[in-house]
Amino acid sequence: MDDVRALLFDVFGTVVDWRNGVSRQASGFLKKHCVPMAPADFADAWRRRYQPAMEAVRSGQRPFARLDILHRENLEAVLTEVGVDVTAIDPNELAALTLAWHRLDPWPDVLPGLARLKKRFIIAPLSNGNIILMLDMAMRAGIPWHTILGAEVVQAYKPMPEAYLRTADLLALQPGQVCMVAAHNNDLAAARACGLRTAFVLRPTEHGPAQSIDLRPDQDWDVVADSFEALADALGA
Amino acid sequence: MDDVRALLFDVFGTVVDWRNGVSRQASGFLKKHCVPMAPADFADAWRRRYQPAMEAVRSGQRPFARLDILHRENLEAVLTEVGVDVTAIDPNELAALTLAWHRLDPWPDVLPGLARLKKRFIIAPLSNGNIILMLDMAMRAGIPWHTILGAEVVQAYKPMPEAYLRTADLLALQPGQVCMVAAHNNDLAAARACGLRTAFVLRPTEHGPAQSIDLRPDQDWDVVADSFEALADALGA
Repeated sequence: MDDVRALLFDVFGTVVDWRNGVSRQASGFLKKHCVPMAPADFADAWRRRYQPAMEAVRSGQRPFARLDILHRENLEAVLTEVGVDVTAIDPNELAALTLAWHRLDPWPDVLPGLARLKKRFIIAPLSNGNIILMLDMAMRAGIPWHTILGAEVVQAYKPMPEAYLRTADLLALQPGQVCMVAAHNNDLAAARACGLRTAFVLRPTEHGPAQSIDLRPDQDWDVVADSFEALADALGA
Repeated sequence: MDDVRALLFDVFGTVVDWRNGVSRQASGFLKKHCVPMAPADFADAWRRRYQPAMEAVRSGQRPFARLDILHRENLEAVLTEVGVDVTAIDPNELAALTLAWHRLDPWPDVLPGLARLKKRFIIAPLSNGNIILMLDMAMRAGIPWHTILGAEVVQAYKPMPEAYLRTADLLALQPGQVCMVAAHNNDLAAARACGLRTAFVLRPTEHGPAQSIDLRPDQDWDVVADSFEALADALGA
């Protein structure tokens, strides 16, 4: 890892707790509109449509659309599926709820860990979230990114190789000088296939108390840690 | 200006003093290779090729190429023009000198002004400089951008309308919620034509002691100031 100059972070699940954040912000809306779902189930249902929506872009079925747009479409689809007439809801309310993804809280170890890592590395998100989503989140939570990178900048959704390779190229770095940090084995596998270094950070409650995936490293990632502070320890930062 | 949420900054000339910075860093190289130019004249000659090189991209004559690439090509052209055989120079030396543009110092009012403006606005560069150029510069000089925006992110060089409009769109803002800050009347004119707000900051020695352009506002820009601290005063930041 001595050659690594930049750490690129997955965000949803790795940096922030999307499930509790979306649940909390959706509960009032769900009650008001009599949506027959518990807030956490609603968050899970909304999130389940995340990969299929991006897959439509990755496969070329539609041009690149930023995640805020996909989140809004997915919100309407989830509500429709459980019988809610979305055309009867004020569009401003739907727009406001879509911004829940901009207002997620970091896991408790994130800010102290990043403060240390920032002294030694370029730190930036490489998320499928769009620029203003990442920027609003960082400004609200005090996440000290050097800059926002990610899918919207390179116009490619992870785990497409372009997402990793174009980002390394923007930094004028070789893939091996960049380390992907994620709580998801599939993200790291795609990054490794492009030549990036990899750091797995365990987030065993991202999907709630009954989480069954990403509870352990699938491969011998370059670093395995259970917090951003442990990651800083491992990298000597 | 009450609607403005983001300030976008021109960088070369407005934020940093490119002429003195490039002169200082080039002087050793010029001496070593017997280049018959004073360092400031060399900086001016290198900079004179900046607009024509971008014009080849703007006109569609070549695909988008980041400024680091154009700076390198322009460096070789300037040296060739004065009779230097660039093929006899170690390419690593040319690459290192090209990075001079990553290591420019801000004018003295920039850091105190931005610290105040950052509390009230999103602050980001909207420069024709590429991402890693802006990032290296910011990390070295302590420029506290919220994120790096600019030509490479939107794949369009100022003063093309796309450079301004796509950047506002990335921020999910209307053009009128964004203010362009620049020491150059032509940059502000292009931004205003796209509906952006405009702030002119006077930099009367950008081009050296005999500067003849941009010594006064050509139009009634929304703000006119002689420093970033005066800009912060004018914006109540």
